[in-house]
Formats: sequence, C-alpha cells, structure tokens
Amino acid sequence: VQRSIDLNCDCGESFGSFVVGDDRALLPLVTSANIACGAHAGDPDVMRATLRLCREFGVAAGAHPGFPDLQGFGRRVLPLTPQEIENSVIAQIGALDALARAEAVPLRHVKAHGALYNAAVEQRSIADAVARAVKAVRPDLRFVAPAGSALIAAAEALGLTTVAEAFADRRYEPDGRLRDRRHPDALIEDPAQSLAQVLQLLQDGAVTAVDGSRVPLRVETICLHGDKPGAAARAAALRAGLLAAGVVIGVPQ
Amino acid sequence: VQRSIDLNCDCGESFGSFVVGDDRALLPLVTSANIACGAHAGDPDVMRATLRLCREFGVAAGAHPGFPDLQGFGRRVLPLTPQEIENSVIAQIGALDALARAEAVPLRHVKAHGALYNAAVEQRSIADAVARAVKAVRPDLRFVAPAGSALIAAAEALGLTTVAEAFADRRYEPDGRLRDRRHPDALIEDPAQSLAQVLQLLQDGAVTAVDGSRVPLRVETICLHGDKPGAAARAAALRAGLLAAGVVIGVPQ
Amino acid sequence: VQRSIDLNCDCGESFGSFVVGDDRALLPLVTSANIACGAHAGDPDVMRATLRLCREFGVAAGAHPGFPDLQGFGRRVLPLTPQEIENSVIAQIGALDALARAEAVPLRHVKAHGALYNAAVEQRSIADAVARAVKAVRPDLRFVAPAGSALIAAAEALGLTTVAEAFADRRYEPDGRLRDRRHPDALIEDPAQSLAQVLQLLQDGAVTAVDGSRVPLRVETICLHGDKPGAAARAAALRAGLLAAGVVIGVPQ
Amino acid sequence: VQRSIDLNCDCGESFGSFVVGDDRALLPLVTSANIACGAHAGDPDVMRATLRLCREFGVAAGAHPGFPDLQGFGRRVLPLTPQEIENSVIAQIGALDALARAEAVPLRHVKAHGALYNAAVEQRSIADAVARAVKAVRPDLRFVAPAGSALIAAAEALGLTTVAEAFADRRYEPDGRLRDRRHPDALIEDPAQSLAQVLQLLQDGAVTAVDGSRVPLRVETICLHGDKPGAAARAAALRAGLLAAGVVIGVPQ
Repeated sequence: VQRSIDLNCDCGESFGSFVVGDDRALLPLVTSANIACGAHAGDPDVMRATLRLCREFGVAAGAHPGFPDLQGFGRRVLPLTPQEIENSVIAQIGALDALARAEAVPLRHVKAHGALYNAAVEQRSIADAVARAVKAVRPDLRFVAPAGSALIAAAEALGLTTVAEAFADRRYEPDGRLRDRRHPDALIEDPAQSLAQVLQLLQDGAVTAVDGSRVPLRVETICLHGDKPGAAARAAALRAGLLAAGVVIGVPQ
Repeated sequence: VQRSIDLNCDCGESFGSFVVGDDRALLPLVTSANIACGAHAGDPDVMRATLRLCREFGVAAGAHPGFPDLQGFGRRVLPLTPQEIENSVIAQIGALDALARAEAVPLRHVKAHGALYNAAVEQRSIADAVARAVKAVRPDLRFVAPAGSALIAAAEALGLTTVAEAFADRRYEPDGRLRDRRHPDALIEDPAQSLAQVLQLLQDGAVTAVDGSRVPLRVETICLHGDKPGAAARAAALRAGLLAAGVVIGVPQ
Repeated sequence: VQRSIDLNCDCGESFGSFVVGDDRALLPLVTSANIACGAHAGDPDVMRATLRLCREFGVAAGAHPGFPDLQGFGRRVLPLTPQEIENSVIAQIGALDALARAEAVPLRHVKAHGALYNAAVEQRSIADAVARAVKAVRPDLRFVAPAGSALIAAAEALGLTTVAEAFADRRYEPDGRLRDRRHPDALIEDPAQSLAQVLQLLQDGAVTAVDGSRVPLRVETICLHGDKPGAAARAAALRAGLLAAGVVIGVPQ
Repeated sequence: VQRSIDLNCDCGESFGSFVVGDDRALLPLVTSANIACGAHAGDPDVMRATLRLCREFGVAAGAHPGFPDLQGFGRRVLPLTPQEIENSVIAQIGALDALARAEAVPLRHVKAHGALYNAAVEQRSIADAVARAVKAVRPDLRFVAPAGSALIAAAEALGLTTVAEAFADRRYEPDGRLRDRRHPDALIEDPAQSLAQVLQLLQDGAVTAVDGSRVPLRVETICLHGDKPGAAARAAALRAGLLAAGVVIGVPQ
C-alpha cells in the first residue's frame, strides 16, 4: 500500500490579458505546478507571476513546455522535426528557468503539455527529443510522464529521474493507455469515482480499465485538470477525500 | 595607446525561412557575436545554428535581447513597463543560455538590441531594467553598452562588468552621443574614415565630433553592422586595416 | 427629448482557446456588436462564429479594429505611423467584411478599439488615418466615435456618417472628455447611477460632469462593457430600466 | 498550337524588416502576381506596397493565401480543419481585397500557396475548403491551380473560372503530377530545358514526363519561382525565349 501521492496541475496558461484558469484557487490544492513556458501559453510576465504564486503556496514549480502554437493552445500536433521540438523545448525550459532564478524559486520537474505530451507517448522520436532537451538543460529535473509509457522509457534511457503520472478523471484502456477523449466514457465525471480510482491506484497499484480488467499501474503523481468550470471544487473534494483516507499529499521524494 | 580591440556584430537575426544577413561571411571577421534571442528576431533553430557558427569560427557568443516585436525587428520602442522589459530580457537570455548549454558554447556577454539599446541609453529606468535582468540570470556576462552612457552606469551600479562600445561607421556629437540617423552626416560611408575613427579611438582615446571637437572616449569593442549590402567587405577592410596598424583583435580580457 | 437609443458592446474578443467575455449572454441585450478583427483579439474562426451570433440575436454587426497587439489586447499605443495604422485598419475591416459576406451578415458600423480609439481622440493624424481606412474600404459603414470628439470631426470631414457614443459607466470632465481611469471616481459602479446618466442624456441632452457642471452631449449609442464579472447582469438592468422609462432601443436610423 | 501564355510569380512575401525576393526586379517580367496575404508572409504595409508595384508594372494582382504559419513560411501542413482553412482563406483574401480597393488595383485571381496548394491537390476536402472560400468572397476571381488536378475540379464544381498552371522548372510524373522535390531530377536547372518544356506545352499541349512518356496538359499560366538567387535572370531568359518564339505573353482572356 502506497501512503503518499503528489498532486499536479497545469497553470500559468494566461497570455497578456487573456486569462485561463484560476491559479490562485487551484494551486493551494496541489503540490506540483506545471507552468506554461510562453509557447502554447504564458508570457514572461505571467510566468514570473506564476512562479511567485508557487512560492506563496509552497508548491513545487515545474516547466510545462508545449508546441509553439498559441492559437491552438498546444493541443494540435505541429509538423516539427524532432530536432525542432528539442530546440523549442530547450528554449522554453531555459526561459522559465531564468525567470525562476530571478525569483529564487527552484524548478523541480518538467512535464510536456497537451499534444506534445500525447505525441511523445505515441512516437519514440518525439519522446527522445523531449528527453534530450531536458537532459541538455536541466538533467536534474524530475521528468513527469504517463505511468508505463514510452515517454518514461525514453527519459530513463537518458538517465533522467522519472515521475509516473495517472489521471483522476480519465478512464484507461486494458493496455494502460488513456481512453481516447472521443469515446463518451473517456472522462470520469463523478468526483466519488475519481477519488475511488486514485485510492485504488494507491492501495492496489492498479486501475480498472473500461472493459473491467485490472491494469497494474505504479504512479507517483496525479494530474488534476484546472481549465474547466468547477475545477477547484473538484480538486478540493479529491484532496479532502485523500486526506480523509490517510493519504499523505506531497512531492515525490 | 591601446593595442587591442574587440570587434562585435549582430547575428542570428533570421526567422524561419526569413533570412537576414550573411552570418557565415561576417562571423569570421569579428571576435564577439551578439545573437538574437527570439523576440525581435531569431527562433530556437536559428539560435542554435548561430551558436554552432560561433564555435566553428571561434567567436565569443553573446545574448542580444530586444523588444518582443518581430514585425518591427526590435527597432520600435514598445510601451512596456520596466518590469515587463526586465521579464522579457530574462526570458530571452534564459532561452539562449539554455541552447548554449545544449551546444556547450559558453555565453560571454550581453548587449541590448536596437530600440531597447537606444531607450536604455535615454531612460535610466529602462537601463536599470536591462541591468537587473542580466544581474538576475547571468551576472557573470560582460555587459556591452555605449562608452560613457547611462547604460554603463546602470550596469556598474549593479556590480556588472561592462564593455564600452563605439561604432566604426557612426559620427558622434560633442557630448559623446551618437549623431542621430536623421542627420545626413550621421553615417560614415567611407571605409578609410571608419578605420581612421577606430585608430583615433585606440591611439588617442577620443573621437572627433561632428563639430570638430575632440571627445574623449575609452572603448573596448567596436560594433560592425552586418545587415547592409557590402557589410562583410567593409568589415574585412576594417579588420585588415587594424591588423596592418598593429592592433590586436580579440575579446576584452 | 430623445426617444430611442442604440446599445453597443465589444465582442468576438476570444482567440483560439482563450475565451474572453460571454458573447452569448451579452449580445441579446444590445443592438450593435463591435467584432474584433484578428489584430488585438479574435481569429477567423472566432470572427465567423461571432457573426453568426449576431444573426441569431438580430444584432447589427460592426467592425472593431485595434492595434495589432494580441499580448496587449489593443490597450497599448503601438508606435505605428498613421499610414501603418491606416493599412492595418483596412486589412482588419477587409478580413471581417469577407467573413461577413460568407455568412451573409451585413456589416453596419465600425468602431476603433481600446488604445486606438483613445489615440484617435487625442491625435488628429490618427483619427484621420482611421477615417481614411473606413472611407477606402466601406464608406457606407456608420462610424462610431465619442460624442463631440475630434474623431467624429475627422470622419465627417471625409463624408462618413457618424454615430455619437457615450458611456453608461464612465464619468465625464467639464469639457466633455471621459474622466481618466486613473481617477478613483472615473467609473460609475452603481447601476442606478448608470441608468440615470443615460436617461439624462436622452431627456436633457447632457451629462453632469465630475465638477457638477452640465455638459451638453448628443448621443446615438451607449457603450456597455462586457469584459467584467457581472457585465451581462448590469447590461440587463440598464436595458430594463430604459425600456421601463419608455425608451426605444434600436440601431441608429 | 497555343499562341499566348500568362506568366505568374509569387511576391509580397516580405514581413516587416524581413525582405524576401526582389519584387521590383521580377514583377516587370510576369503578367500575374500572387500576393501573400499576411498569414504565411506579408503584412498590411507590404501588401499595399506590392499592390502599388503591380500597378506600376501593369501586372495583374492576385491573392496568394497560405497556412497561417509565419515561421514555416506556409510550407508546412498545419493541422487545421477544412472549416478553419476556409475561414482563414476568406480572411486573407478579404484583407488583400480591401487594400486593393484602397489602392484602386483590381484583384484578378487567387492561387493557394505552398503547403496549402499541395494539400489541396492531395485532399479533396481541402480543395473544397479553398474553393468555397473563394466562392464566398470573390467568386469572380480566376482560380489558379495545377493543370488536371483535383483542385481544378473542386473549383469548377463550384462554378469558379479556373486557370490551369504548369511549371517551367519542375519535371512531371507520367500521371501529370509534379515530380516530388525529394527526387534529384525534380527540378529543371537548365534554362534552355525550361524554355523547351514551356514551348512544348504551347505547341504540343503536353510535357514529357520523367519516364519519357508524353503527358497531355492544357495550361494557361506558367509559374516562375522568385525566391532563389538568379530568379530574375532566369525569368528574363524564359520571357525572351518565349517572345522570340512568337508567343504572346499576357493574362488569360
């Protein structure tokens, strides 16, 4: 039985006057924050303000690089070569890292965003590009990726420390992949079921897939989505449920 | 009499398929390269390729942050607050610094670009913002700024090591400022006169202003412009003239 | 006594996944919609969707060009020449006009956005540039501008039909200008006072300035702000108050 | 035997200070100009200046919409839906059309750029999207597309007037498609061979494919590439050769 878990969420996804999410409401509920790096979202002012929020709430700050695609919010796979992806991710982490040093807030982890995260799971060449970028700039950052994925393997092949992630509000296929969002049952809407899935991961080291089968999955962090209405309330409910079950919430050791 | 001088030029100012300048022709002629950081010009791929050119030609690489204004090429003063300027410069240096680490090319200096350089000379609050940015991220970088300017003062006030710059192809006012480009005599078109101005700076520690007066000016680097037709030929002529006069060309010690 | 008034609001200010305002809640409450044209906000998909909303709610569609400054949301004065402003406004109106033809939704008016609106009031050269742009592309569009301003004069000098605008939630100076937002009393927070100001404009043809003086002001449209929390509720209250007072709400004839 | 042919080239592909091609050298040599519309290249100032060049040289002006991808110069297929492509093309044509009206330069044709042109040839849904955009905004524009392609068919299905295009410097497959650029023999480097291919098209109504077979192809316009060194000299040579052979060079009737 696993007694502790990290909770992470995306943040810093505003751009100029365009406000996305409610970081001030969500960050106090998690232990790790994935900060957009100015490519799919964020700008230097938003990045710096978000780093300050991380310090204010005692949340571990991490880089959240994505495809350089503001209009698509990093949710479209852009036709970049692996080398171009590597260069973009290096520049993104570098920009955030510099602002973090200016704020004396240490960066602790990195997690690819949206379409880059998904593409890196599907294509090893993209996984390698992202891992090489991290290795080149901040090899000490913990590399967050889906439990059991090729992205974990790519990062470990380069000697990076990985953090296996699962989702509280997504269903799984029998092979351990996330159920595609195009299926009506891809999302877990019921907060009680979300809590149950996370508790099962902790207590049993597995999730129940859409076909009812048991999928072993070792996880160290749970991703909470912050960009929907009610996100903070859902996060608070999950957090309370975990604490009530005696789970310790904290960053991976 | 000063026996050595650094020659610097802007580079890495292409963007995607948009090619600016001929870095491969110009870089072998200088000793310090100011690399655009993706805001007024440059992108992660161009930045990395330019860092490789610096290594190939043994040129000292530096960051060349500018206003985030691709269409205006950083030549327009954008209405950013000093804090926004600081954040932008931090992110720009951070991005280039990360790519430089990936290429194992050390960054040696930083120099503001275009309208940011000019605005920082005119407004102390902007000079302070740029200097704070450098101090926060890479306080070891040499800070290149116009000889005798408020930008030098701002950097020194923060404890940064400065490098005083003059121009081979620009005329000076009696107070040591650059003659505004709107005057027809602002530019020195004749290569022999450019060489003479640089030699006067080295041998006499002064330039002759537009009114004929002598302006004392201690300089450690000379800026060569690379974005005009014939730029490489002019640079080669100046370099040859300096070498013929026994001047040692190299980075500041 | 004036018996009818137009109500206008800004809309279509989302960009990709970045959502601004609640157009579906606000548009049913107004009679004229100012649609962002892809420069300070909006993109072709948002523009087209907003045109469809105008048709759905029977609201007159208009163009809302601004400075090409997505990060600043058009609220910063960019250092463009009058000619560059003219070209940008032409291209913006042209883009929206083409999408409007594709949707068979007629454009009825044009109103400059944010910093462009304010700069055009302050500087006649900018007012002329905006007016020339409208004259060149769609001289039949009604030109919305602050009652009594130089922007009205510039448009009329080119033979454009103007629509004089006042604000329900802003206070006025004795000379008819808007009270600068930096003053604490610049905004009218109380919905009842907003309604009273509009009724005074209709019944008396004047507003009461911050110093208590009466400022004659003929207006044909009232601007409602949509980007604050509670915007739709405030708009609904104003609309209800006007209808209760027997005012006819509709586009200028 | 065909006695007349149109010559077209891309132009207006500069952006701000980033200069692409030498429009002033190339435009006097062609009869139709494809002007970038601000998405893959061009900006409102460049667009307007290019329209003036068209008037100065008596060249027919056309719209040259591409994927909204400045960094990729429209040469990458972006993951847009057909509807998003349609909206983008409408907005692009609308922007150029408005500037053309401001300059009193009539638009005569439209031709998709780069990856959009190629994708529209390969995928009927994209061809239909581009054709719908033209139909919606300026159904009178002549629709330039590869001779014998699905893009021609898509445009004709909507009742548009098409102009069949061939290339002077590209080789063809036996099925009438362009030889992929990845093959070493895709390009015709020898100006004499380029001229021969165009004369064969005019005199025989066919090209000789890479395997030596004869491919019937009716063409009304020949595309000249302008973005390589020596482009104007090559264009001048082809033009001179055609005139010497008694060919009339002019826009399609």
